[in-house]
Amino acid sequence: MSAAELRVVGVRGLPELRAGDDLPRLLLAALAGIGEQLCDGDVVVIAQKAVSKVEGREVELADVRPRPEAVEIAGSDGDPRHVELILRESRRIVRRRGRLLVCETRHGLVCASAGVDRSNASGPDRAILLPIDPDASARGLREAFAREARTAVVITDSFGRPFRRGTSGVAIGCAGLQALQVLTGRHDSAGRVLQHTAIHLADQIAAAAELVMGAIGGIPAALVRGLEWEPGDAGITATLMASERDLFR
Amino acid sequence: MSAAELRVVGVRGLPELRAGDDLPRLLLAALAGIGEQLCDGDVVVIAQKAVSKVEGREVELADVRPRPEAVEIAGSDGDPRHVELILRESRRIVRRRGRLLVCETRHGLVCASAGVDRSNASGPDRAILLPIDPDASARGLREAFAREARTAVVITDSFGRPFRRGTSGVAIGCAGLQALQVLTGRHDSAGRVLQHTAIHLADQIAAAAELVMGAIGGIPAALVRGLEWEPGDAGITATLMASERDLFR
Repeated sequence: MSAAELRVVGVRGLPELRAGDDLPRLLLAALAGIGEQLCDGDVVVIAQKAVSKVEGREVELADVRPRPEAVEIAGSDGDPRHVELILRESRRIVRRRGRLLVCETRHGLVCASAGVDRSNASGPDRAILLPIDPDASARGLREAFAREARTAVVITDSFGRPFRRGTSGVAIGCAGLQALQVLTGRHDSAGRVLQHTAIHLADQIAAAAELVMGAIGGIPAALVRGLEWEPGDAGITATLMASERDLFR
Repeated sequence: MSAAELRVVGVRGLPELRAGDDLPRLLLAALAGIGEQLCDGDVVVIAQKAVSKVEGREVELADVRPRPEAVEIAGSDGDPRHVELILRESRRIVRRRGRLLVCETRHGLVCASAGVDRSNASGPDRAILLPIDPDASARGLREAFAREARTAVVITDSFGRPFRRGTSGVAIGCAGLQALQVLTGRHDSAGRVLQHTAIHLADQIAAAAELVMGAIGGIPAALVRGLEWEPGDAGITATLMASERDLFR
């Protein structure tokens, strides 16, 4: 299940992306520009913002009319239009401290601000929303790459977590590989049967890719090469913990 | 801050480890066995269980006398001696559902069972505890490697997380590199100043390394080569969220 060695290659050279751009074509061109081509078994990792931009998931804040609750949460320092977008993208506020909102998004992801973010947007008064269905976005990209090679696709974002400072790359969409690698029933090195053991492979891929992609927005994609993975189509949605099983909701 | 390409190399060929073993020497020998040697800038990643074993942090369950609370929590299906060890390693139980305990360890880590685990132990009736001070363990290893090269060291474990199924590699100890990469004040691709942005570099390194180390216990170490990191000595302890700042404790 695990390779002895893998490479994580940042894909530089993508142009500034716009709604309607052919992301797979641009990505293949950028790969060629760094002397690479897709190979069978590659995992193509793409930053959420790249996917959201080509899918037209950017919003001009001037077009947003905030509800009274958004005005209240924004207070005197915040932007009620930004808060309004966060409320629209959420099915539930999980925690709130002042203007900090930890939300359950319509997809079931739990993250700060429902993933609505102004950094790396196309202009100073624009905000980027998460894709409507990141697993579907990943499937579409994978199908487009299928002419070149049998790949898997992971769409990443950077989320803060409880208990620890700072963000880490997480997978918000996935296609082609089994995101959750279940080891229950297998034996450890001492012959003991593993219980309740499952590794979130896609999250680990996302974190590895973020090491080369960084947060500054210059490198919106990466290849992970040399990793063994099992085919699967359940996506990330299937790996989100049901709210009623979650000790922290 | 981010490299265009990095390699993650699993270090096979370490022997079964015992208390008192010279882990740095064994690791350098295993590296030589796979045709590698330490280079300046390498991050050496080591599984917690390897560190705990050489530090003698394994316990024979027969030697553990459980307190009444441990017997109560264990119920009819659990092992009260295992629960006793969990309670000893914890300064606080954060959540409980039946026998599942999410604990704040003496170090301030929040994880299931306070990191006490029976898989990959040296025998069927033994349990492995986390190192007493994983940052200090990492510093010791780094100093031992300093004769060979200027490295950083990260000690990893696999933790479950709220909101998502499965585990991911996390850093429990670190030496030589700045675990938290603070980007606040830098500019994004659109020239906007980033706010409250920090990447937990060490956690991402841990997750990347777990991709080659796996959970089966066969590969207890990895090299991450090609990553740019800033020197730092604050360790992982400095990256744990203070309980009073945490919305989920």
